[in-house]
Amino acid sequence: MIKSFGYAALAADAPLAPHRFERREPQPQDVQIEIMYCGVCHSDLHTARNEWGNTVYPVIPGHEIVGRVTAIGDQVSKFKVGDLVGVGCMVDSCQHCDACHEGLEQYCENGFVGTYNGEEGHTGGMTYGGYSNNIVVKESFVLRIPENLDPAAASPLLCAGITTYSPLRHWKVGKGMKVGVVGLGGLGHMAIKLASAMGAEVILYTTSPNKREDALRLGAKDVVVSKDRDEMKKYRNSLDFILNTVAAPHNLDLFLNQLKREGTMTLVGAPAEQHPSPEVFNLILKRRSLAGSLIGGIAETQEMLDFCGEHNIVSDIELIPIQKINEAYERMLKSDVKYRFVIDMKSLEQDSAA
Amino acid sequence: MIKSFGYAALAADAPLAPHRFERREPQPQDVQIEIMYCGVCHSDLHTARNEWGNTVYPVIPGHEIVGRVTAIGDQVSKFKVGDLVGVGCMVDSCQHCDACHEGLEQYCENGFVGTYNGEEGHTGGMTYGGYSNNIVVKESFVLRIPENLDPAAASPLLCAGITTYSPLRHWKVGKGMKVGVVGLGGLGHMAIKLASAMGAEVILYTTSPNKREDALRLGAKDVVVSKDRDEMKKYRNSLDFILNTVAAPHNLDLFLNQLKREGTMTLVGAPAEQHPSPEVFNLILKRRSLAGSLIGGIAETQEMLDFCGEHNIVSDIELIPIQKINEAYERMLKSDVKYRFVIDMKSLEQDSAA
Repeated sequence: MIKSFGYAALAADAPLAPHRFERREPQPQDVQIEIMYCGVCHSDLHTARNEWGNTVYPVIPGHEIVGRVTAIGDQVSKFKVGDLVGVGCMVDSCQHCDACHEGLEQYCENGFVGTYNGEEGHTGGMTYGGYSNNIVVKESFVLRIPENLDPAAASPLLCAGITTYSPLRHWKVGKGMKVGVVGLGGLGHMAIKLASAMGAEVILYTTSPNKREDALRLGAKDVVVSKDRDEMKKYRNSLDFILNTVAAPHNLDLFLNQLKREGTMTLVGAPAEQHPSPEVFNLILKRRSLAGSLIGGIAETQEMLDFCGEHNIVSDIELIPIQKINEAYERMLKSDVKYRFVIDMKSLEQDSAA
Repeated sequence: MIKSFGYAALAADAPLAPHRFERREPQPQDVQIEIMYCGVCHSDLHTARNEWGNTVYPVIPGHEIVGRVTAIGDQVSKFKVGDLVGVGCMVDSCQHCDACHEGLEQYCENGFVGTYNGEEGHTGGMTYGGYSNNIVVKESFVLRIPENLDPAAASPLLCAGITTYSPLRHWKVGKGMKVGVVGLGGLGHMAIKLASAMGAEVILYTTSPNKREDALRLGAKDVVVSKDRDEMKKYRNSLDFILNTVAAPHNLDLFLNQLKREGTMTLVGAPAEQHPSPEVFNLILKRRSLAGSLIGGIAETQEMLDFCGEHNIVSDIELIPIQKINEAYERMLKSDVKYRFVIDMKSLEQDSAA
């Protein structure tokens, strides 16, 4: 076993605090990584506080991981010591179901292994995430980070990036298309950057008029304040695709009505309580679809990272020391972040020395 | 003007009763039809009773019309006197929007003209439907009925047939696919016949165990009683497509969970009150879609009729004299029909002579 050090929640109502633990020794197919940065995703908070009811404590969150390879197993061929790499939401899957065969490990029919709070096949315990100094991951779940990207700002690509890239690709977003993005947060700001880099004309829908300038800077062609009935008339029946990143329950019909015939709105946020039920007539009268999408496969995540390398796309981040994580969670709950917190893992040394 | 005779509702609370009225003289592009049979659709009842709040009285329902051509305008080239023809839900559309150009008149961006209770462009009044002895319709909205089909049993193809055929084609149902049909009524029984003729393996979902035999006879490969939790496990995560024909509000998640990854459930019934809101997780975790579909275009309706001619598909009907229409409405409300009432228009003579 190798010694690790990070921040863990020991109970649903306990703040994250320094925690020593062990990880498996690198196996022949494993890559050992020294973590440099880890993005802070809303799922981290849900899990730390057991809001989905499935948390096993201690839990060490973090699935937007960027670092350098420090050791490799003797069957590893794709990575060498010193490589800049990333780990996202998954560290394993069954590898033999149809979904895995198609490179869609996120839909593994036997359930993928989450980067944290998942079942660790080797130790028999749980997986521990990226709020820590190191991690050991099977080579096939390790991604290559383009060296031209700022590694801190690249870390949110591993979850927020792929969660928005995958549906944009699946629904074939590209030149000549009008694409709506609902919500300007961690996911929404990535969706604007990615969809506009794919050549689409992006319209951001937000409830906050003061997000207009930021959205335009990020690449949106236009911004619509969704509470404003008159503004909502502008693109009615005209969008090809909408990526809805808002998890809070809201009126889906407002946005379904912006789609033209055969348009699709894809949800990537799952609300704790359901949205109000959408009007069936809004689907029927224009042959529209309402869909959902979950992160993305490993091959697609590499494709996304390469796309971001080519287009110089990273996340807009606020870098924090790990000692500020509990405060960051509170600010995240108030949407007080532009647009993703990223933990600088060098800050761990301070606790480690103590 | 030509003289017509049929059954009309004069008010929301009045039963249908004999009614004399006039239609336009056939224009150069018009076909005049002597109506032989007219199917009875649930929309007829909704409109007669003003349940959608948009009925203009007197209203003469009926949009599953089969008859013989008795006269043609001098620019008509596709039909001649004596031809067996049909008229469905639409008698006109703008002909210049994108939807019309694509042959999708049902999605006409300026609104198609309904066969009844629509705005009649020539007379300035309303269109009158098929519960009558004759009708005058623009050639481009008249369909050819294959002569090998029983004309009475073919009449429901004009609405129930195309409403199920169009989504089955749009979502590419065919050999090697497992297709669910929810509900065994006028639409559901056509969906079973059509989807199985297209080569799919059809599973019928019903709340009534006593519909099992009928569904198998109609072509279903299997029947699942949707209230039975154990039966519902059998096809969980395995269907490619579901056509949901039930308009009464019901739990959509039950059926969404039967779809495999990337499967679509399409709704063709619009409930008066919304369905309970579907779980977003059921869409996200398998990249599923929930969609809607409205009747079908004119070219596609002809394609459907030709397909039915080739495969000898008609509706299972109960033929009634028009004097029984009010009773038929009451029975329809109790789902006491296998599976479509069709009015034998010869029965009109009895009132006409009176």
